[in-house]
Amino acid sequence: MQQADTIIDARWVIPVEPARQVLDHHSVVIAAEHIVAILPTPEAHKCFEAKRTVTLGEHALIPGLINLHTHAAMNLMRGLADDLPLMEWLKHHIWPAEARHVSSQFVRDGTLLACAEMLKGGITCFNDMYFFPDAVAEAVLESGMRAAIGMIVMDHPTAYASDADTYLHKGLETRDRFAAEPLLSFTLAPHAPYTVNDKTFGKILTYAEQLDLPIHIHLQETQDEIQQGLEQHQLRPLQRLQNLGLLGPNLIAVHAVHLKPDEMAVLAQQGCHIAHCPTSNLKLASGIAPVTAMLAHGINVGIGSDSAASNNRLDLFQEMRLAALLAKGTSGQADALPAHQALRMATLNGARALGKEERLGSLEPGKEADIVAVRLGGLETLPCYDVISHLVYAAGREHVTHVWVRGKPVVENRNLLTLDERHLSAHAGMWQERIR
Amino acid sequence: MQQADTIIDARWVIPVEPARQVLDHHSVVIAAEHIVAILPTPEAHKCFEAKRTVTLGEHALIPGLINLHTHAAMNLMRGLADDLPLMEWLKHHIWPAEARHVSSQFVRDGTLLACAEMLKGGITCFNDMYFFPDAVAEAVLESGMRAAIGMIVMDHPTAYASDADTYLHKGLETRDRFAAEPLLSFTLAPHAPYTVNDKTFGKILTYAEQLDLPIHIHLQETQDEIQQGLEQHQLRPLQRLQNLGLLGPNLIAVHAVHLKPDEMAVLAQQGCHIAHCPTSNLKLASGIAPVTAMLAHGINVGIGSDSAASNNRLDLFQEMRLAALLAKGTSGQADALPAHQALRMATLNGARALGKEERLGSLEPGKEADIVAVRLGGLETLPCYDVISHLVYAAGREHVTHVWVRGKPVVENRNLLTLDERHLSAHAGMWQERIR
Repeated sequence: MQQADTIIDARWVIPVEPARQVLDHHSVVIAAEHIVAILPTPEAHKCFEAKRTVTLGEHALIPGLINLHTHAAMNLMRGLADDLPLMEWLKHHIWPAEARHVSSQFVRDGTLLACAEMLKGGITCFNDMYFFPDAVAEAVLESGMRAAIGMIVMDHPTAYASDADTYLHKGLETRDRFAAEPLLSFTLAPHAPYTVNDKTFGKILTYAEQLDLPIHIHLQETQDEIQQGLEQHQLRPLQRLQNLGLLGPNLIAVHAVHLKPDEMAVLAQQGCHIAHCPTSNLKLASGIAPVTAMLAHGINVGIGSDSAASNNRLDLFQEMRLAALLAKGTSGQADALPAHQALRMATLNGARALGKEERLGSLEPGKEADIVAVRLGGLETLPCYDVISHLVYAAGREHVTHVWVRGKPVVENRNLLTLDERHLSAHAGMWQERIR
Repeated sequence: MQQADTIIDARWVIPVEPARQVLDHHSVVIAAEHIVAILPTPEAHKCFEAKRTVTLGEHALIPGLINLHTHAAMNLMRGLADDLPLMEWLKHHIWPAEARHVSSQFVRDGTLLACAEMLKGGITCFNDMYFFPDAVAEAVLESGMRAAIGMIVMDHPTAYASDADTYLHKGLETRDRFAAEPLLSFTLAPHAPYTVNDKTFGKILTYAEQLDLPIHIHLQETQDEIQQGLEQHQLRPLQRLQNLGLLGPNLIAVHAVHLKPDEMAVLAQQGCHIAHCPTSNLKLASGIAPVTAMLAHGINVGIGSDSAASNNRLDLFQEMRLAALLAKGTSGQADALPAHQALRMATLNGARALGKEERLGSLEPGKEADIVAVRLGGLETLPCYDVISHLVYAAGREHVTHVWVRGKPVVENRNLLTLDERHLSAHAGMWQERIR
């Protein structure tokens, strides 16, 4: 008998790799933060002796979901100003609220609230971009989840930093401070082509190459952005980034709603990744990203929620479903973006974009144990002919019952173990009064 | 002091009429199945003495949601064959499964499962179209919810009926049998232009006029349907119905994904209603209905889930959100279809389409007490700056805690009072084994 920390006996295990596989009555064995085996349940208990066994007889185990784009702290602005034209929303509501309220404490409290929401919804890792990344890192560690923390860079001053060099300096300082944390990683996060000049992009490229860091950037989200790029630089933003040498396997392009076929070919050829944010793109009236074509070009596409100000749920079940539905509705092909592919986008593709596909994104021996249990025994998921289809089209984040991050339980029977929900609610209420 | 049956003290009451209104710390007073008053909570308790008071300090009360199009019994085929091209899905999966399994017992069990799902999700009334409407009616009554039951008609034979006259005859018999039931109403439900001939439409029109019944029909769901109509009748289906005299305030056109501007003008002018089913239209790759334009034409548009075989959730929170998001994303206007309008579509507009706007669809004194409580105190709905926006963009059906139909509690603290969930699960499991 081999020793293990935990054995999870599940009705189904969906490893994601290989695609479409559904393992019936299997168990996932965890030791030293890693998955050591996935076996038929009787066999697992023959081979392993564990400190703890968790029996989930109506549940599917899936890899922890990876939210490939958010601004977690903005949870404190959830629904602050909805149903407004984009520029009115930004200029008269979001930016003024940020100017008045954003501080280290705001970011810490907002990120804690977002971590709680994400963990309870089966998200174990998120790719963040916001001010005060040191406060983001603290919140993430307190929550027990994983994040890729964006070292945000822009040219104009905010309460966080006065110029591009200061943003960069502070970001790198934060990265140094948390370098030993296994749950944290860092990205260079130039906000967008329209907020970062060529010189700053040059510095970002140097750091990305020296430190082998992903670059996390909003790109071609709206037609206005492209128009502005053409006016100011005589180039579409993607072309400008290409000229500056930024395209490559380190680049995570967020949104990419407006792409021409030749731009997709370039992104594919350069090994860039896309963070598809379907709800946000609809809600802000940016459009519908051509995901079916992106996938046909071979681009690695993950899924993001964007912030609670433009979504208003940090809910990757919703985003998986919407991504699959939109791909069908806009392509005219009901077999476009099948459920297993949507699940892969929200897990393994996200891990790959963050350079973590060797460690995360699927349930395979040797990978770190980021695992989510989804209960499919409720009336709204019965009957069940196809587990993967149910995960995407019928289930929701409310069916997540258990979550493990790096082998450690963080949600059990829908209770968050790492954070005090009443405490978080009280803080949210306090910020609501202040911001309203 | 006036006597009442129930007083519900709520953090917020959203009456839907007038639009955008949010009443803080108000109470809804129920007596003899009706809403008799909506007052500030202290005043309500000064004026009324009730047998029962329900205190919902973190909740919004909204009118019961009205699902304007479904085939409830198909819950037994939830996710049976997803991600397939439409014709393969229908011809090789859904139709053969229906031919093998659909019976009175199938319809009763499937509808019970659907009623349970809908009630727990805040849907108090649905507009159904399926075989064996007598079995649908029995299930609805057992569940304690409300339905408009479609007397389905088509030309080709099924296990339910052999020809159009038999469909009609059986439907009218069912209507007579349940004529005294206050929770039931009936519609004539010719399946679609491509399954019903002109002669049958003539009979349906006669009955609709004689009995003042709504006509519930799938219409211009796909381009193929329109193409087929042009080939067989040299007319687009809507034009054909107009020529036959079927357009008018009794007509509920389901889907209407493909409409030209002049067709919208006709529907508006004739006072027809549309049941918009955004998830189903995407999932079956039918397209995206031009809802912003429909509303601009002044057409009354309600919202439907369609069946669990093409959605796969009977979830009007999801449909409200998706309707609002798609309208923005396709029109390029972030202020298109604001939250209050989506909520109105899922309540009052549905009631209006069914000819019940005097009795249902809003929280107003004199209306029947179909009321839903949505808890907005959880982390995923905090902070809360705009209650109506939260109901549409942040909340989900999982936040529904209490439901009343005609003044009677049917869901309390998320527990269904009228049906035995374990019994329903066992039946779903049995059908799953048989159908798989």
